[in-house]
Amino acid sequence: MSVLLICTGRDPQVWVNAIREQQPNVKLYVYPEAHDPKEITYAVTWRHPKRVFNKYPNLKVIASIGAGVDHIICDPEIPKSALVTRVIDEQLTKDMSTFVLALVLDKIRNISLHHSEKKWGPKPYQTVEEENIGIMGLGVLGKSAALNLSKNGFKVSGWSKTKKHIDGVSTYHGERDLNDFLKNTSILICLLPLTLETECILNKELFEKLPKGAYLINVARGEHLVEHDLLEMLDKNHLSGASLDVFRIEPLPQEHPFWKHPNIQITPHIASITDPKNAVNQLLDNYNRMLANKPLNNIVELKKGY
Amino acid sequence: MSVLLICTGRDPQVWVNAIREQQPNVKLYVYPEAHDPKEITYAVTWRHPKRVFNKYPNLKVIASIGAGVDHIICDPEIPKSALVTRVIDEQLTKDMSTFVLALVLDKIRNISLHHSEKKWGPKPYQTVEEENIGIMGLGVLGKSAALNLSKNGFKVSGWSKTKKHIDGVSTYHGERDLNDFLKNTSILICLLPLTLETECILNKELFEKLPKGAYLINVARGEHLVEHDLLEMLDKNHLSGASLDVFRIEPLPQEHPFWKHPNIQITPHIASITDPKNAVNQLLDNYNRMLANKPLNNIVELKKGY
Repeated sequence: MSVLLICTGRDPQVWVNAIREQQPNVKLYVYPEAHDPKEITYAVTWRHPKRVFNKYPNLKVIASIGAGVDHIICDPEIPKSALVTRVIDEQLTKDMSTFVLALVLDKIRNISLHHSEKKWGPKPYQTVEEENIGIMGLGVLGKSAALNLSKNGFKVSGWSKTKKHIDGVSTYHGERDLNDFLKNTSILICLLPLTLETECILNKELFEKLPKGAYLINVARGEHLVEHDLLEMLDKNHLSGASLDVFRIEPLPQEHPFWKHPNIQITPHIASITDPKNAVNQLLDNYNRMLANKPLNNIVELKKGY
Repeated sequence: MSVLLICTGRDPQVWVNAIREQQPNVKLYVYPEAHDPKEITYAVTWRHPKRVFNKYPNLKVIASIGAGVDHIICDPEIPKSALVTRVIDEQLTKDMSTFVLALVLDKIRNISLHHSEKKWGPKPYQTVEEENIGIMGLGVLGKSAALNLSKNGFKVSGWSKTKKHIDGVSTYHGERDLNDFLKNTSILICLLPLTLETECILNKELFEKLPKGAYLINVARGEHLVEHDLLEMLDKNHLSGASLDVFRIEPLPQEHPFWKHPNIQITPHIASITDPKNAVNQLLDNYNRMLANKPLNNIVELKKGY
């Protein structure tokens, strides 16, 4: 009955400290330190080495330390007996909504354009009332961003795989509605989960359905975007620009053409950061629920991928 | 019974067209074209040549084409018999609130900093909940900005000359309250009218009352700020930065030290732009009220200066 912390690309010590502080008696191993795989029932994970979970015969739960679980479900050998969970952090959701609003306002009011010019060159701005925001993905993050933009006076539409209702937001769903959703969208925001169906969804065919001059904001995953298609649509002036926070390779390599493109604005995956304290609170709550044979929170449907 | 359009620094033709379109029978002169000063009863003005109104013995109204009237009241020889009016444009008020929110979000989420860096360097961000916004000036624009920031989850305080009540906003007034207002403010926003009392109010003595690391946003008038004091407070790291949209000389001269300062963000007076159609609607309404001896709208109290 032990916990395994298994992550790459993040500092594990922050998580070790937060777990030890909140529940000092938990038996915790940090991969790859020596441990008996049979003892592990609960894995706390971020970008684990693929196929590693096959070695753990008694694993009951694979818990993502963030909201994204694409790093788990992209592993073809996840033990079928294990449940996958994720962390839904209220602060993270708020921060994402704030960040999305900040990017939209930056675009319509040309804030960073003016800040970077270092010379006096007033440009016409768009008003809030003129924009049609379209949000792809209406999960926890997409719904929150939609409500926040709507509260600020924007006309907001949303598109999701299955039907959703959100007050004040025009909702569309499924392949059938995609054209109608896209044709009036002036600013497209991607907040989809990354699944086999949504990978590469931001492609030329989709961009061509947007009105000329539309703007793209991707704050979901780099794998949603076909990078070459974005460059082509920008260079043909079909899209007016893009603001990207996520990339196929992170950090985005310094030689990547996105860095130098005048109409691509880059932020280094900073939309929202999971607070380890909040996350560990939820991770340990689920661990204790598992020990007590109670139902777990925030279980991911592996087939849907979110 | 004629109208005189008298402005500098703006294209008068836009205003001529808007007036002629809405009320073609108005007898309109554009200064300095030939006209009989005795005939003029209504002056539509922006930055008129000082002392010029002395020549108009029958002038009843001096109407600013914008919300600001400092360009009128700074003239020591305004005829006492003339009323001064201004335009309150609802869209302009909304645009100002949007712009102020955009600058605050840009600051706390480091948007333009990341956009301009052109390299991968994630920085910690501040959350909405952490900030204490302080707004100086609670007139039409200040109140609207305060409500908009409060609606978005910020803690907001406001300071004004006379006592005001705004739901959800902690209000302070007068000299006596200034210290209390400033001591908790992490982002200070100036939306004061420019009067003899408020000129140079953003000075070293005031900045020293802000907590270390506070940030300044000036979207009112360049004359509110003592430029040298801002540079000194930034260089001593007492203030963390400033976002300025207005300047003593506009366009801000290319050799001005503000352009090169790493912690000063400049926008070229774009917070909100009066829509000539909306403004002319109000200007002609007041003109027709004057002709019909009805009370005028948006009269400025010359003693108060707003």
